[in-house]
Amino acid sequence: MKASLLTIGDELLIGQVLNSNAQWMSEQLTEIGCEVTRHLTVGDQKAEINQALDLLKNHSDVIIIGGGLGPTHDDITIETLSEYFGMPLEYNLQWLSKVEELFRSRNRVMTENNKKQAFLLSGATLIDNDCGTAAGQYFKAVDTRIFVVPGVPHEAKSMMKRFILPEIAKSTLGEGVKIRKETLVTIGAGESALATKLDGFVKKIQSLSNVTLAFLPNLASVRLRLQMKTRTASEDANFDALVTELANECGRDFVGFEPAKLESVVLEQLKSRNQTLAIAESCTGGLIAHKLTEIPGASKVLKGAIVAYQEAIKTSELGIAPDLISIHGVVSETIARAMAESIRQKWNTDYAIATTGYLGPEGGDANAKIGTVWIALGTPSGTEAHEFTYENNRERSKERAALTALDLLRRKLSSHPI
Amino acid sequence: MKASLLTIGDELLIGQVLNSNAQWMSEQLTEIGCEVTRHLTVGDQKAEINQALDLLKNHSDVIIIGGGLGPTHDDITIETLSEYFGMPLEYNLQWLSKVEELFRSRNRVMTENNKKQAFLLSGATLIDNDCGTAAGQYFKAVDTRIFVVPGVPHEAKSMMKRFILPEIAKSTLGEGVKIRKETLVTIGAGESALATKLDGFVKKIQSLSNVTLAFLPNLASVRLRLQMKTRTASEDANFDALVTELANECGRDFVGFEPAKLESVVLEQLKSRNQTLAIAESCTGGLIAHKLTEIPGASKVLKGAIVAYQEAIKTSELGIAPDLISIHGVVSETIARAMAESIRQKWNTDYAIATTGYLGPEGGDANAKIGTVWIALGTPSGTEAHEFTYENNRERSKERAALTALDLLRRKLSSHPI
Repeated sequence: MKASLLTIGDELLIGQVLNSNAQWMSEQLTEIGCEVTRHLTVGDQKAEINQALDLLKNHSDVIIIGGGLGPTHDDITIETLSEYFGMPLEYNLQWLSKVEELFRSRNRVMTENNKKQAFLLSGATLIDNDCGTAAGQYFKAVDTRIFVVPGVPHEAKSMMKRFILPEIAKSTLGEGVKIRKETLVTIGAGESALATKLDGFVKKIQSLSNVTLAFLPNLASVRLRLQMKTRTASEDANFDALVTELANECGRDFVGFEPAKLESVVLEQLKSRNQTLAIAESCTGGLIAHKLTEIPGASKVLKGAIVAYQEAIKTSELGIAPDLISIHGVVSETIARAMAESIRQKWNTDYAIATTGYLGPEGGDANAKIGTVWIALGTPSGTEAHEFTYENNRERSKERAALTALDLLRRKLSSHPI
Repeated sequence: MKASLLTIGDELLIGQVLNSNAQWMSEQLTEIGCEVTRHLTVGDQKAEINQALDLLKNHSDVIIIGGGLGPTHDDITIETLSEYFGMPLEYNLQWLSKVEELFRSRNRVMTENNKKQAFLLSGATLIDNDCGTAAGQYFKAVDTRIFVVPGVPHEAKSMMKRFILPEIAKSTLGEGVKIRKETLVTIGAGESALATKLDGFVKKIQSLSNVTLAFLPNLASVRLRLQMKTRTASEDANFDALVTELANECGRDFVGFEPAKLESVVLEQLKSRNQTLAIAESCTGGLIAHKLTEIPGASKVLKGAIVAYQEAIKTSELGIAPDLISIHGVVSETIARAMAESIRQKWNTDYAIATTGYLGPEGGDANAKIGTVWIALGTPSGTEAHEFTYENNRERSKERAALTALDLLRRKLSSHPI
């Protein structure tokens, strides 16, 4: 089944708006086995819309048309479709009263303009809009199924999820077939190392016709998206078993299922153990504390952080002797360990994280060149330190160092049950 | 002059990649007076590319074709164009040695595959690639100008800026006409307040046919993009004068010209005065320190920060008496002032920033409800504190509070010359 996406709107052609709908819809359609073969965007002009339909209707089993359903004079999608497909416009009183009700509920006055949105294609199926005033429409033109949705992303998405994807899936997947999916967040192993580790599982998946596994790498983590077409309860159980197996195969690299984030997993680990954390940041400059404090309830676990950016602060706040710094260099195992131990003792926490590094673009010394980062972890059973070498890219390496530090703590906590 | 954008790549049709090139190119083309009438995306398949060209070549003065120039077997753009337009492929030894040199300089081995990228359309003009191995191409087919660029955004952008936009501008603007533009970053006033303040300037701009001004608001700042078509040195001087006038009209809200960032402006202010900064963060949780330490050289100015997240840390590190907290509430003018004064004295800095607030989703007390943030500024001439009320949205309000705190310091520094 081949689908084309037709987007209508001058705002896209002048570059004011990014066509994010096309990406999201394509991903969703691909998932249910519908092949997207074209994205076409044209302006709010009858001739251009007609020409687009001429092209698309001969090569598509499905056309999803988005945009131009608003109440203003430049929204001409419905009247153009009416002429093109010979489907008269009909004043839909049911939709009118829905729109009137929406305005009432938001305490806003409905203008004459909005009444235009109740003129709909006669003979088409109405697709309800649960968050706006434009109706969706669905009809068939010869063998092509045509869906019309608003351009507003959350309105279009809602119609896709509630009506359009299930409708298309009846043909591509068959009645009663679902797409189950789960995304596993991993951190620690790069894409190829993880692929090697999961080789056996990947081979098994490849032998199954109804399961796919995608590796989605980014800066410090790799997400794994597992998908399966299921029809029966036993297939659903098989999918659940595969998810568990994959998580187990990832071992310590497995962080959680999306939307889980590393930060929230670490906070949960500490919270469930009633333990606390302190952070002494140098090169990460507050980023670790920032990440943790994005999560509601972080204050139950995180006592706080010292961003000891200048050496003098490392000395005055963390008691690091200037001599120690001149002997070992400020970016060193010794200083990282000392920072972690100092803040852990001073603030009397169970765990402590410390970072010190040269992130560039300038800096470095005889002991450590740009890109060197030492991360130390203070724990109830002693302190450990790890060295990392990153590229000379300040922002990326700072992000990577912060995530790596949190991940070291996560691993430590999962290997030491309460 | 009408332009069409043709993007080639299966990765867009399965929704793996967002077509951000189309937006950026459309914006740039619109700016130079070239009307974009279509975006079309098709897969890496000869028949689909041919069909797209059939459609576009009859309706476009310019076609910009992006994607499918890579070294692998599925990159077929150049050979498809060769057949379609009857332009034989030519092995370009000059390009080959350029690619070889690029691999050498990166210490990487060039594969046989990459040699494919030296097969180019004979008769086409080569567009140099300053950051990759795929050559751009430019030719005319009857009256249509065709530009071919890589799909990789930064490579495509660079070719657009260096070659394609100037080439098209010769026709749309006329020889010697330039588009001058400058984006002013402002913070403090919302969009409508700023528009009111700039009313006189806006009216003046509206009376000029060759100048435009756009308001681009986001979370805490409004950017102002001023554009003018210039041909003569005196018009250039007029534009420069308008830019200066607009910056003056913005008054204290004016932060700098893009790519200036608030963080870097504040650091520069302090650096030029040889002054230092310390931060005591509660609700912003390290975000202010993180923002400042994204900027290279921050360590010359920023001594560090204490993220006093739990009340005990406010007491132990900043000497805030528990009684003071129970009397005034932890989110209060008194505590914000005490935090700023304490860290400024303790670390002996010229300036100090302190934040305390309830960002939600839960929290608040009798003295301060969710969304209340107090920001204090410790300065050589005393301490000041400001109260803000934000929405119950943790991430947005945290970002807003951090930017507002930095902006308060920027205003203070610009109003107190050294």
